[in-house]
Amino acid sequence: MSKSDMDENTQKEYFELLKFESVGADPAKLKDCTACAMWLKDWLKKLDFAGELILAKGSFAPPVLFAQRPGDEGASTILFYGHYDVQPADPIESWKTPPFEPTIIGDRIYCRGSQDDKGQFFAFLQGLADYLETAPEGKRPTIKIVLEGQEESGSEALMKLAQTDLRKSLAADVLLVCDTSAAAGLRPAIVAGLRGVSHFTVKLFGANRDLHSGEYGAIAPNAAQAIAELVASLHTPSGAIAVAGFMDGVEMPSEEEKAEAEKNAPSAEDYEKDIGCAPVGGEEGKSIVERNSFLPTIEVNGIHSGYGGPGAKTVIAPEAFAKISMRLVPGQNPRRVFEAVKAHLEANTPRGMRLEIEDWNPGAGGFRLPLASPLFRLASEVLKEMDPRGPVFHWDGASIPVVSILKEASGAAPLIVGWGQPEDRIHSPNESYSFAQFALARDWARRILEAL
Amino acid sequence: MSKSDMDENTQKEYFELLKFESVGADPAKLKDCTACAMWLKDWLKKLDFAGELILAKGSFAPPVLFAQRPGDEGASTILFYGHYDVQPADPIESWKTPPFEPTIIGDRIYCRGSQDDKGQFFAFLQGLADYLETAPEGKRPTIKIVLEGQEESGSEALMKLAQTDLRKSLAADVLLVCDTSAAAGLRPAIVAGLRGVSHFTVKLFGANRDLHSGEYGAIAPNAAQAIAELVASLHTPSGAIAVAGFMDGVEMPSEEEKAEAEKNAPSAEDYEKDIGCAPVGGEEGKSIVERNSFLPTIEVNGIHSGYGGPGAKTVIAPEAFAKISMRLVPGQNPRRVFEAVKAHLEANTPRGMRLEIEDWNPGAGGFRLPLASPLFRLASEVLKEMDPRGPVFHWDGASIPVVSILKEASGAAPLIVGWGQPEDRIHSPNESYSFAQFALARDWARRILEAL
Repeated sequence: MSKSDMDENTQKEYFELLKFESVGADPAKLKDCTACAMWLKDWLKKLDFAGELILAKGSFAPPVLFAQRPGDEGASTILFYGHYDVQPADPIESWKTPPFEPTIIGDRIYCRGSQDDKGQFFAFLQGLADYLETAPEGKRPTIKIVLEGQEESGSEALMKLAQTDLRKSLAADVLLVCDTSAAAGLRPAIVAGLRGVSHFTVKLFGANRDLHSGEYGAIAPNAAQAIAELVASLHTPSGAIAVAGFMDGVEMPSEEEKAEAEKNAPSAEDYEKDIGCAPVGGEEGKSIVERNSFLPTIEVNGIHSGYGGPGAKTVIAPEAFAKISMRLVPGQNPRRVFEAVKAHLEANTPRGMRLEIEDWNPGAGGFRLPLASPLFRLASEVLKEMDPRGPVFHWDGASIPVVSILKEASGAAPLIVGWGQPEDRIHSPNESYSFAQFALARDWARRILEAL
Repeated sequence: MSKSDMDENTQKEYFELLKFESVGADPAKLKDCTACAMWLKDWLKKLDFAGELILAKGSFAPPVLFAQRPGDEGASTILFYGHYDVQPADPIESWKTPPFEPTIIGDRIYCRGSQDDKGQFFAFLQGLADYLETAPEGKRPTIKIVLEGQEESGSEALMKLAQTDLRKSLAADVLLVCDTSAAAGLRPAIVAGLRGVSHFTVKLFGANRDLHSGEYGAIAPNAAQAIAELVASLHTPSGAIAVAGFMDGVEMPSEEEKAEAEKNAPSAEDYEKDIGCAPVGGEEGKSIVERNSFLPTIEVNGIHSGYGGPGAKTVIAPEAFAKISMRLVPGQNPRRVFEAVKAHLEANTPRGMRLEIEDWNPGAGGFRLPLASPLFRLASEVLKEMDPRGPVFHWDGASIPVVSILKEASGAAPLIVGWGQPEDRIHSPNESYSFAQFALARDWARRILEAL
């Protein structure tokens, strides 16, 4: 598949979509997010979708686009989910091309969101358009599309809407999502499980100002030292989670699930080549698959306190913060887990410090789907037509928290198939998606819609 | 003492001096530092000093101003030391007045450097000018003045010069310094000891880029978590220093020194009122005076890794750094102490991380002076004339590392008397110095020069 296989109009539309700086987490980009959602609504209108932008009450989050196209009588209902928001582009200086200017280099398109998730869902929507062109009358399903703008920062608005105003509208038979990865060598992969995610910011406050580290050293409590101690307390020296109650209720995978997961997992060598260092995160003595697919995590996404400029500044910082996220597995309830972590942080707050926890986003729990379901059988057949190797089943370490919520609200069986690869570098500078991946996602959409 | 007691010309000159943005640690301010040193050279020329700006070989540090005024034959030689560099102004948003615009509010002058050390040394130089106006012929000492521009970031250039090119020129009988604090209620204080200081930056490197905390969580080592663990490892849970060998050779104070220090130290309540939180830094079970005056410290001045912006970003950071300084006491050799800390950091580097140590500034060790010296007796008499309460002796937790080096290079006995107060907020936003403090420093200079 090369550049020339993407038709001019598709590329034009794809690039238009990518140019919106739809960083959902940044309030300064709310306008860009809204413009992006408007553009998508208009695009879907051409396929006879009636769409509306919905805002959650009391929220300044980017709008949720809900669009619907009625099907033939008696046909099934399909719900498709995607997100048009993207990760922040920073560190911007590490980008080789402008982060919001789609740039073709070789057989790849470089741009923030070129894959996650604009590229993946837009390829799917192109496949949906292909399907609608030839779909036989009488069998066409009702299609509902939800595109949100807050997935990268917790989907708060959509999760609220899915449990209130939007709940009834979501009812469906199948929930399709295209926001995950294929296996190595672009072999198709069906997600049989996802971890949940929940995050918050923890802050510590000590003195009333920056203090001189000589005049006040060993007198004033040091917030930079304190946040280090607090963060370090979350894990044992062997990397296990040290928070009492955190692991309560964790459901371990079946032998079949473990065997299937181990079969298709990248090796330690693959990871080392990819990330440039030994894959020694997580708990010692557990396999990579266990650590990534079946065990929960607590990760510090940022820690900041005190001076960070050139040279030295011998201060004792009065405050500090850490941004913390948790990946959750089946059996863990986000609220109970958060309460356990909160209790741990309170109990371990260093002397002299005042603790504050902010911006808790409960997210959603993780889930696993039964391998033997009819939907998985059907999807396997379609994917085998596309690729004789057939699909692998995958328990993704990542999260689409809102999928748990949509699954519950819609009553639908989720079918999660995406076409990402590690070299896409999602969430990092120089994110990209290949023409080949785009074509696969488009082809998959048409074929599965025909089969359902 | 009120504003009207400072003559117009002194105020004009003082404000001119304050307006130079002489942040010695910031390479972008090298020009401002040089201009400030030139201004001081010209100012001293009017008092018949021959001055020169000296650069250390291979260094881009602000220049050292060395100025000399020959005395009468057979008279003694006095060396005066001060520093014209100031701390960075950040966080700038916390200043109520522009940080480099001297602003009079009530009986105080607000400006970065209004006290530390521009205000203190310039008041002293004004007292020197007063002295020279009336000094009797035949008794006038040779006066040498060293004003450097790098004290707040380690005095590297002057320390190098004092041990090489400048060494011979520094020979003196007495070393006068005005860069410290008076006791509570502006009671005069003689510094009988100073802690040394030494600092460096420690960096950790993990993966080759920001990674998605779902895809790579519990696989890739997390640099933010790692720097927290590494920094936390420097102290025991009770706040004692956990670095093997760090305390080797520490000379504890005599009972007389301890008693004198305890007598004049602020109480825990004083500190709490000042800093706005309990003074629980340092090691549990040690008194405030021990912790601040007689024991060494390791303080983290900054810790930074990963995302720090609005909202959430679920990344695993590939690198992290901490800025670390150490206050040293007599018996500790800066190089040996650094080697101990380095060995500790190497031994405690978390799995998967590569350690780098940068910008080590060895600084200098701490020192204590004998309470019973003739110089301390003479100074005590002069200070008793100024204030019937007489001086207290003080072992300062802060450092003027270069004083150790100048003491050794000059062979002079150091007499360190300054007029700072906690409310001056040096190193913090809204630094200030009062007209009363300025007048005391000026008066002290004239009187001690007359007495020596």
